[in-house]
Amino acid sequence: MSTVEAVTRAAAGAVEGLAAMGRAGRARLLRAAADEIEARREALIETAARETHLGETRLNGEVTRTAYQLRVFADVLDEGSYLEATIDHAGNTPMGPGPDLRRLLLPLGPVAVFGASNFPLAFSVPGGDTASALAAGCPVVLKAHESHPDTSALAFEALQAAVATAGAPEGTVGLISGREAGAELVTDPRITAVGFTGSLSGGQALRALIEARPEPIPFYGELASLNPLVVTPAAAAARTESIADGLVGAVTGSLGQLCTKPGLAFVPADAAGDALVARMATALADVPAGLLLNDRVAEGFDAIGADLRSQPGVSVKATGTTGEGATPALLTVDATNFTAHLAEECFGPLALVVRYTSEAELLDVLATLPGSLTGTVHSESTDDLAPLLAVLQPRAGRLLFDAYPTGVLVSWAQTHGGPWPSTNTVHTSVGPTAIRRFLRPVTWQNAPERALPEELRDDFKGIPRRVDGVLHVG
Amino acid sequence: MSTVEAVTRAAAGAVEGLAAMGRAGRARLLRAAADEIEARREALIETAARETHLGETRLNGEVTRTAYQLRVFADVLDEGSYLEATIDHAGNTPMGPGPDLRRLLLPLGPVAVFGASNFPLAFSVPGGDTASALAAGCPVVLKAHESHPDTSALAFEALQAAVATAGAPEGTVGLISGREAGAELVTDPRITAVGFTGSLSGGQALRALIEARPEPIPFYGELASLNPLVVTPAAAAARTESIADGLVGAVTGSLGQLCTKPGLAFVPADAAGDALVARMATALADVPAGLLLNDRVAEGFDAIGADLRSQPGVSVKATGTTGEGATPALLTVDATNFTAHLAEECFGPLALVVRYTSEAELLDVLATLPGSLTGTVHSESTDDLAPLLAVLQPRAGRLLFDAYPTGVLVSWAQTHGGPWPSTNTVHTSVGPTAIRRFLRPVTWQNAPERALPEELRDDFKGIPRRVDGVLHVG
Repeated sequence: MSTVEAVTRAAAGAVEGLAAMGRAGRARLLRAAADEIEARREALIETAARETHLGETRLNGEVTRTAYQLRVFADVLDEGSYLEATIDHAGNTPMGPGPDLRRLLLPLGPVAVFGASNFPLAFSVPGGDTASALAAGCPVVLKAHESHPDTSALAFEALQAAVATAGAPEGTVGLISGREAGAELVTDPRITAVGFTGSLSGGQALRALIEARPEPIPFYGELASLNPLVVTPAAAAARTESIADGLVGAVTGSLGQLCTKPGLAFVPADAAGDALVARMATALADVPAGLLLNDRVAEGFDAIGADLRSQPGVSVKATGTTGEGATPALLTVDATNFTAHLAEECFGPLALVVRYTSEAELLDVLATLPGSLTGTVHSESTDDLAPLLAVLQPRAGRLLFDAYPTGVLVSWAQTHGGPWPSTNTVHTSVGPTAIRRFLRPVTWQNAPERALPEELRDDFKGIPRRVDGVLHVG
Repeated sequence: MSTVEAVTRAAAGAVEGLAAMGRAGRARLLRAAADEIEARREALIETAARETHLGETRLNGEVTRTAYQLRVFADVLDEGSYLEATIDHAGNTPMGPGPDLRRLLLPLGPVAVFGASNFPLAFSVPGGDTASALAAGCPVVLKAHESHPDTSALAFEALQAAVATAGAPEGTVGLISGREAGAELVTDPRITAVGFTGSLSGGQALRALIEARPEPIPFYGELASLNPLVVTPAAAAARTESIADGLVGAVTGSLGQLCTKPGLAFVPADAAGDALVARMATALADVPAGLLLNDRVAEGFDAIGADLRSQPGVSVKATGTTGEGATPALLTVDATNFTAHLAEECFGPLALVVRYTSEAELLDVLATLPGSLTGTVHSESTDDLAPLLAVLQPRAGRLLFDAYPTGVLVSWAQTHGGPWPSTNTVHTSVGPTAIRRFLRPVTWQNAPERALPEELRDDFKGIPRRVDGVLHVG
């Protein structure tokens, strides 16, 4: 038996036990995991800093985020609305006598989660996919990202400690590593869904493997995103400096290695726009070079950056302080020279500013862009936003106004997911509703009370339920 | 420009207008469609009876169901909870200051719907996929099933009349026909999701085409289902005749051409079980032969029926009255002779009864079955249901108790969808929650009120919303 088979067999063996823990038991598991992550804060930061070159402040925040996210899903279990508990009592309907029907969402089964390179914790071994799948009641088999194996092992140790503390079944979490094992994992017959955050090419390779399975399973991929950001002429004039500084911060924070980095900014080709770009150039020139996450990211940044620089009409407006690693860069191009070839994500501290001379020109270019996780507009109250939103809304999962897309709060109203190629799903991967990815509906018809989950019994209280068509809170 | 391209272009052109109608406008559209269907009741029944050989009573019920279903989705729009409207006001969070985030589900875009042969209305041109997609705000391009073109044209005329009455955009509904056009439809870049009810092979062919698209889109297929039904020894003894009669009714109703027909029944190999099977044989012998939906269905019924009869240990226990068309058949096999080869859906009036000598033997066979839309248990209050449910629940989308799975009420608690190969989705295709298939979440961050959909404005009332984490009703 291969390692992968042993791990997925253990995961399959944990399905019933994890369900039997109920919502309260799984909430305890998630809170224990948060505690165990925090108990290893120093070691996690130190290990991840060494493996990812991300700074300590950023990694400290990521530990906090990871623990917070686990606790949010514990709260989601307590609240219980994610079950979509629904009762239709037997009775007359316009279609004749109707049976007693009761519906709930149940876990799919073992889930494979691929850790991302750029968030060694929050989108990795103990990250959002893991938290939402465990909350749903799905055992999780983790594929550690090859660029932070020690961080993955340490975080996995924290999850295992939580499994023991909470009395969860042994196979609740499993860890594998290596590309070949990852490929075996997504084709394993026991795996019922896959969560992946990474490159478009990596995601496409996994998708092809998954589509070749005899039994199709959902693949939730979060892939490439340009995150266009538009500055209207009025905003460029009114907030020249703050937008320039905010944008450079968003482009170069975490060395631009965020899936929500605004890689493409649209700035008017007027005097205010000139001043805004000049200020961006000055700000960016002060940003030091730095080591990217791994060699593959560094090679991609160099190759795509060089390709963008070589395109007709593209100029280098500024570069950061040179040094070891990747040097930040600010490129510009006129909207008339914008081609589909320029709409490629360059993962790292680089942005392309597109200068436009009219709203029509701006809208024409925006209409050629692929889907993104986010779309941002910096505007003034005098601007008519309708034409811009009409073209941005179909291309983004989150629309921002006078803000920067890099922060992704874990909250009920969050959406982290957008049209292809940013993701391939109709669900978010961040926030409570991410749990829906790992659930399927089941209906009990005419069931005796003893055969029903407790949340579907008539006298159960404490979670939102829809009874005979009417939604009741708690 | 091909016909398909013209139709999908018109559909893409209707996206904005359909959204602009709002929930109230689309509810009017759906109610108008229900009225127009009912206004054509006689003609629809007459045409469908000629094209499908289904009886007038059944088709009359289907007209009623189709109109009812359209009105249910109008009510879903009025109620508004399907939007999952969520507001997180700006404020302090454990992660620091949080932005104002507001989330809503938005329509995907034009949807392709493939009509089914066995429900010429309720799962066809004006059926559940169409009703839920239009409710979501997605224009629908319908692929008429080749075995009922006139019914499809007449039903489409009703939808077009409703589009005109409600003032919906012209491209709101479109109709194409032919296999080649269907293949072109699912690969058209403007199509954003596909709904399909039909054979496993047809679904697999469409899935392969969809997976070859450069931009992946969701494919919601409802395919093959065995619908196992278990009779416990206690139930066989207590309700011998009623179960036998109910089962034969479910197997032969609509000549067995229902995706929820119980094709596989498990009956104890004891005296009560013998009596139950004998009663089934007597009842089935009285059921007349009849014409199936079309030649392809008839050929499949003959071929799979012959294959099942030829398997080791399978006996023909009874056949119906011979005549023109397909003759109903009741086959039996001992559980010890059950193989995976027998777990194939035979669409039409045929059931295979598996005789088991112990619960262990029963559970062993059940554990080998593929996923189904439904799983049914006939039991008595003295039975321990836990072992049976442990094996049936992972294999079904709806669990029935002392009932028959063929009726599928359109109601909030309904699930019509199960594990592969019965479907390939984590959503139901019948009932209000089917709308979720055609929606994606979008979040507005820090948006000025004028940029928000009205349902996300602070002072909006009348639909359930989650505000700062707390669900409020209306």
